[in-house]
Amino acid sequence: MTGADFSTLNLTDVTVKLEEDGILIVTLNRSRKLNMFSERMSSELLRVFQLGDQDDRVRVIILTADPAAPAFCAGADMDEIVNGSALLGRKEDKEHEHRDPGGQVAMAIYNNRKITISAINGHASGTGITALQIPFDIRFIWAGAKLAFPFIRLGIVPESTSTYLLSRLIGESNASYVLLTGDGVKPDSPIISTLYHKTFPNRTDVLPAAIALAKNLASGTGQVSMAYTKGLLHRPGASVEENHLLESRAMKLIGTSKDTVEGAQSFMQRRPPKFRDTLSEHASSWFPWWSPLDVKHPKSKL
Amino acid sequence: MTGADFSTLNLTDVTVKLEEDGILIVTLNRSRKLNMFSERMSSELLRVFQLGDQDDRVRVIILTADPAAPAFCAGADMDEIVNGSALLGRKEDKEHEHRDPGGQVAMAIYNNRKITISAINGHASGTGITALQIPFDIRFIWAGAKLAFPFIRLGIVPESTSTYLLSRLIGESNASYVLLTGDGVKPDSPIISTLYHKTFPNRTDVLPAAIALAKNLASGTGQVSMAYTKGLLHRPGASVEENHLLESRAMKLIGTSKDTVEGAQSFMQRRPPKFRDTLSEHASSWFPWWSPLDVKHPKSKL
Amino acid sequence: MTGADFSTLNLTDVTVKLEEDGILIVTLNRSRKLNMFSERMSSELLRVFQLGDQDDRVRVIILTADPAAPAFCAGADMDEIVNGSALLGRKEDKEHEHRDPGGQVAMAIYNNRKITISAINGHASGTGITALQIPFDIRFIWAGAKLAFPFIRLGIVPESTSTYLLSRLIGESNASYVLLTGDGVKPDSPIISTLYHKTFPNRTDVLPAAIALAKNLASGTGQVSMAYTKGLLHRPGASVEENHLLESRAMKLIGTSKDTVEGAQSFMQRRPPKFRDTLSEHASSWFPWWSPLDVKHPKSKL
Repeated sequence: MTGADFSTLNLTDVTVKLEEDGILIVTLNRSRKLNMFSERMSSELLRVFQLGDQDDRVRVIILTADPAAPAFCAGADMDEIVNGSALLGRKEDKEHEHRDPGGQVAMAIYNNRKITISAINGHASGTGITALQIPFDIRFIWAGAKLAFPFIRLGIVPESTSTYLLSRLIGESNASYVLLTGDGVKPDSPIISTLYHKTFPNRTDVLPAAIALAKNLASGTGQVSMAYTKGLLHRPGASVEENHLLESRAMKLIGTSKDTVEGAQSFMQRRPPKFRDTLSEHASSWFPWWSPLDVKHPKSKL
Repeated sequence: MTGADFSTLNLTDVTVKLEEDGILIVTLNRSRKLNMFSERMSSELLRVFQLGDQDDRVRVIILTADPAAPAFCAGADMDEIVNGSALLGRKEDKEHEHRDPGGQVAMAIYNNRKITISAINGHASGTGITALQIPFDIRFIWAGAKLAFPFIRLGIVPESTSTYLLSRLIGESNASYVLLTGDGVKPDSPIISTLYHKTFPNRTDVLPAAIALAKNLASGTGQVSMAYTKGLLHRPGASVEENHLLESRAMKLIGTSKDTVEGAQSFMQRRPPKFRDTLSEHASSWFPWWSPLDVKHPKSKL
Repeated sequence: MTGADFSTLNLTDVTVKLEEDGILIVTLNRSRKLNMFSERMSSELLRVFQLGDQDDRVRVIILTADPAAPAFCAGADMDEIVNGSALLGRKEDKEHEHRDPGGQVAMAIYNNRKITISAINGHASGTGITALQIPFDIRFIWAGAKLAFPFIRLGIVPESTSTYLLSRLIGESNASYVLLTGDGVKPDSPIISTLYHKTFPNRTDVLPAAIALAKNLASGTGQVSMAYTKGLLHRPGASVEENHLLESRAMKLIGTSKDTVEGAQSFMQRRPPKFRDTLSEHASSWFPWWSPLDVKHPKSKL
């Protein structure tokens, strides 16, 4: 599917640019407000990541900020929270009706079929980590970034599905420490360092490195292969046996595609591959193999 | 609920002291027997952690030992085991009737709604790690501690729910190595180092550092916020979607509390918060949201 | 059960030798083809690991290669794949009928009741990591080994149950990076280093170190204790409560064995233990406590 014209989207808290090589760069655009996570920012990010997922032209999505901004993202907008925004739940919502906006964004990123990179070129706090870093596939960061998890210090709870994801990503020992103490950390702290794949001494180096990797992946990997591999990593089945059945079926499905033939041929001929299959053309009634829980319905029994 | 008078509990293998600032300090008191884990110690720890969970005055629970003792805990009491204690299962119990005393203690710690800190100021072995370190939220340790996992060398199996928890805390690669080889390790070994959040060169430095963090958490975090955050970390749901619903509901429930208002106000006013909500006052029929498996019944089908 | 005569098995792509002390050494034997994973190699490894599991004489299984070979294993045999082998699924198989040969081998290793060690003394790629390293209990490696995860670069998906196991072993943050970028890494890279328990500067040092550990484990650990401990680590139950019931029952079952008596006595007498219980003699209708999913049936609904 060739999707929306990203350049004509009516956005204010983020800007979006689709590069010719299939790289969608999303930039936080509230630097005067420390790029704080607003209700509007959440709905704009949700829309952009959903469009990026559906648009066959998009192969990699990068989130970043202006490296000259005072912060990558200083957390949820406290002014909005005090004024009763949906960030902590609107007054009129019943107990079971609230849907955390950070979690909505986090799921749109984690469930994205395109590879996602967070290029963190400034300080970050709260939702600026839980929604804007943790759900991504790859995280590049400025070595000087101050990172804070203040939830427990504010009398609230961590959100944006971080209480599910962080333990999986870096282990429950470290996840418990940062979420239960609220301590500030730096990217090279052993408590958090496995969250970050590359660290850069200068703020201005983070995005170029992310773009270089993105270009490499956009030209060197297949769209269907990436989507299936992400699916297998995120929904691996409940045992090695279930996983074996899922991997086997994914391999058989993809094994008849043009991309697999091209992958083998380019390998034998020692040349770069040209993958052309798209998710739209290669639709399968089997993928996704899991039944996503419908979280939209406010009458969910959870 | 204002609970028991900890000072009048009839305890011998541990001592307990509730500090004014809500810190409950539990000290192993069998140094003449290397603080070995006895049946009596297990029932005393079980009682103390359950009371600490229920008592609204308690905000942090620290476990430690006399730093002059020959060991933090040298494992299960082998004399008792040879004499047929419940530690490995009494002779008269049928196959499905045994309940591992270390596991009972471990669950009382892991499921505790108050934050728990293990201040390990001596050598530790077996149950001294599986029950008295692994189920805690935070672990501070003496750098010189010798750590041993001897189960596989004794012809038995690891216990105290360590076969569930250790892989989650530090990854299955490292957990498999220490539990399947029984090798001794030091706290700075890459095999085990992510289990420990801070390491101290002197045995006498461990408890003071734990108390300093405890004071900071007791005054700077909310009781309900801590309980919900621990619940989310330990029972995050089976997918990002389920987790999103749980986090959303926890946030909505807590978002109307006095603590959340105080958290936002103190943040805006740049002053330390004064959290006053208690778990007793803030009871909710929704929390805990999971149905704990009843492990007491000896006729369990497991 | 005293099993097959390993020396008379009709094998070509691997060689097998059962040492007197219960150590089964399996050596990849395709060095002229870079030890590439062939369909034949997969069926030979499957058979050898299944026999090793069932044979009471076997206590430890080591997989290795000739340290002079150009690679430990250079991945799946691309010639076979291009010629339509079962490695990616045969043409005539329907979508749900393929069973990944690497996954079959991986499950035979991961589910093995004997402790397994991979002694990686050369470069490795693809299936040479996913099937021949990841499912093992312990991994020793040559520091100079080049490691590559090329699946995403070939338009296919990772296999051999690596999308289930790798996140569990080293955390999803690192697993996602290596599987989604396909980047090459060295054993000391923080991205992958927790996968390896010991690293050696010389290729020829890897196997002797693995054999030394194997001898130590073969003489110092019980066969039933090892099998139950591996079972608990791999199938720990869905919560601490379920795990507590499983550990309790395993401890009670094993607690009446001769090995447990010997373990306690040798400990008290400060002498090495002599464990003699075997899995055949110590069969229990309870172990394994999980119902393995039958993956052989091609009509599986997954």
